[in-house]
Amino acid sequence: MIYLDNAATTRICEAAMERARELFTENYYNPSAKYGGGFAVSAMIKKARGSLLAQIADPSKFELIFTSGGTEGDNQAVFCGARRGNAVTTEGEHAAVYASFTELKNRGVEPRFVPVRRDGGVDAQAIAERVDEKTSFVSVIHVNNETGAINDVAAIARAVKAKNPRVIFHADGVQAFGKIPVRLTSDIDLYTVSAHKIGGAKGTGALVKRKGLTLPPLLFGGGQEGGLRSGTENPFGIVAFSAAAEEWFSRPSEDAARIAACREALFSALDKTLFRRISPEGGSPYILSVSAVGMRGEVLQRMLWDRGVVVGTGSACSSKHRFSRVILACGYPKDVADGVLRLSFSRDSTREEALQAARACNEAASEFSERV
Amino acid sequence: MIYLDNAATTRICEAAMERARELFTENYYNPSAKYGGGFAVSAMIKKARGSLLAQIADPSKFELIFTSGGTEGDNQAVFCGARRGNAVTTEGEHAAVYASFTELKNRGVEPRFVPVRRDGGVDAQAIAERVDEKTSFVSVIHVNNETGAINDVAAIARAVKAKNPRVIFHADGVQAFGKIPVRLTSDIDLYTVSAHKIGGAKGTGALVKRKGLTLPPLLFGGGQEGGLRSGTENPFGIVAFSAAAEEWFSRPSEDAARIAACREALFSALDKTLFRRISPEGGSPYILSVSAVGMRGEVLQRMLWDRGVVVGTGSACSSKHRFSRVILACGYPKDVADGVLRLSFSRDSTREEALQAARACNEAASEFSERV
Repeated sequence: MIYLDNAATTRICEAAMERARELFTENYYNPSAKYGGGFAVSAMIKKARGSLLAQIADPSKFELIFTSGGTEGDNQAVFCGARRGNAVTTEGEHAAVYASFTELKNRGVEPRFVPVRRDGGVDAQAIAERVDEKTSFVSVIHVNNETGAINDVAAIARAVKAKNPRVIFHADGVQAFGKIPVRLTSDIDLYTVSAHKIGGAKGTGALVKRKGLTLPPLLFGGGQEGGLRSGTENPFGIVAFSAAAEEWFSRPSEDAARIAACREALFSALDKTLFRRISPEGGSPYILSVSAVGMRGEVLQRMLWDRGVVVGTGSACSSKHRFSRVILACGYPKDVADGVLRLSFSRDSTREEALQAARACNEAASEFSERV
Repeated sequence: MIYLDNAATTRICEAAMERARELFTENYYNPSAKYGGGFAVSAMIKKARGSLLAQIADPSKFELIFTSGGTEGDNQAVFCGARRGNAVTTEGEHAAVYASFTELKNRGVEPRFVPVRRDGGVDAQAIAERVDEKTSFVSVIHVNNETGAINDVAAIARAVKAKNPRVIFHADGVQAFGKIPVRLTSDIDLYTVSAHKIGGAKGTGALVKRKGLTLPPLLFGGGQEGGLRSGTENPFGIVAFSAAAEEWFSRPSEDAARIAACREALFSALDKTLFRRISPEGGSPYILSVSAVGMRGEVLQRMLWDRGVVVGTGSACSSKHRFSRVILACGYPKDVADGVLRLSFSRDSTREEALQAARACNEAASEFSERV
């Protein structure tokens, strides 16, 4: 089985898996408990928090709040950050930001959606143009989860702050963290990451927050996570996240070069009479989106599954809709959007897997064409 | 080690633990993915959903939404249920409901807190009296997490609906599910449960909703859980929750009788010159709250840890505050509230453990008294 749907979710890494029995059956204490066992688990969370934060930002300037995943982080950023006036985002966002912006209308905040380029990315100027004195919040995806386009969130945040320094700037970093270099600048107020995209467990993520930014909680209760995210902590999810990140970050530039080579090998081996490239060359090495124009990506996906190759079609989170909102926003017609396959790598992906996957894609698309 | 802090969290059960490697390293697919692996995981979630729901309510009349835990379920109920007028709850609620009600003020909804009896419970009439034509939401804890008092939520919901049939009625069942008989009546609209209190994993819970009730989501995004709770599902957490519940529910009345006997054995063996009972006799068999009046529960708790006995002091979620809000609301003075120990059982607790724990409590309290 060649698994190339790592942007949807990953197999947990062994370093994370190894902690499961310990955290579930030995150190299972409630980290808020005021006795040895609780202190021990609390210390593990503290260590994981420090390790993860140091991989993203300067720990003297940022703090990290554990959440139940990317969606919760994005929702907390949007609903707790966008409290008045208008809020600006792009048409290339993941549903967790996009649907939250749509909901803002019901809460008296005007959502503004900035069009994206053909590659799914957006320029700083296009965002800054929609920011005015009434803008309270801006959110831009760091790596587009469908095309892999990289937005220069540091430059975008700088341009936004130059226009209105009171804006809260958030970036959804779910497909960036562990995949491309991430270092938060002081213009970035909030940054969302997720564990299960890099070998951690589903159900854990984090919202990184600039120190000094006052943000209300989304979930109220026992006051965990410094009052910013109530609910019993998930120590296994947290420790596994940190273990997975440490593994992913052990050789980032070497991995990026190797995975980019896999991506290009795969694309080179695709039959160009059948497949058209959607992903930009300068995008995330971990995502290759192509379209079998005029075919149905969902059908190809199942044909590939039967051949032992697992691929995505756009975002797993939007699999209810036939046409990807994001691919249409890129300006592609429906026959291109319908044929999209997203091949997404992990750091364990190999060139051999990439070439085998390409062959399977060619076969499946040929078979599909002959059938029709 | 004798673990009697099961109301804070439990050791995961073996039936749940056994599924970890499979769900994390084999069936790790995104359940929204439209290929064989995704369908298989999606089917496991469907099976777990059906199994859990059937243990709580008539599946033809209720549906179950998986959440990240009790706090999220309570927050979704409160913030998505209480949208106008006023909302009524008790002074005996867990922080996840209580703090959410406090926040309602900022959202234009008037929170009303009904006093509790000495045992922490509340009568249907006391709740119904505060309900009027402007009440949109009522929330009552099923089993008080600090005293174990059982509220007759069916009777309370009936009285509330008789006063105003448009009210949305929610019960926090986190300490009830798996511990006392739970069967939702048609007057109950929403019911919150949590996995890690009954041998499941931290990070998973559920909100049970009456079919026909329209409830907005708390988290927006990919539209998982029928659009009511976006975010990639946590298949291990969900399957583990179902496995744990099936184990807990394998012999409920036998367990309840046995655990109630443990609780009474423990209380009988406590030195009554040192300990005063807080829990009512008719409360949850799984919770025994006592107070070492004039002593500090937190200090006793650590002394007991050193003796290999793990107990709580009120709610782990409110461990930042010296005096439990709920115990004070019961009408106890501060010297009683300060000395509270909560001994909470699992279905694996034994009479021998209970008696050993009582001896350790007596020794620790004697030593504490001599020191002062």
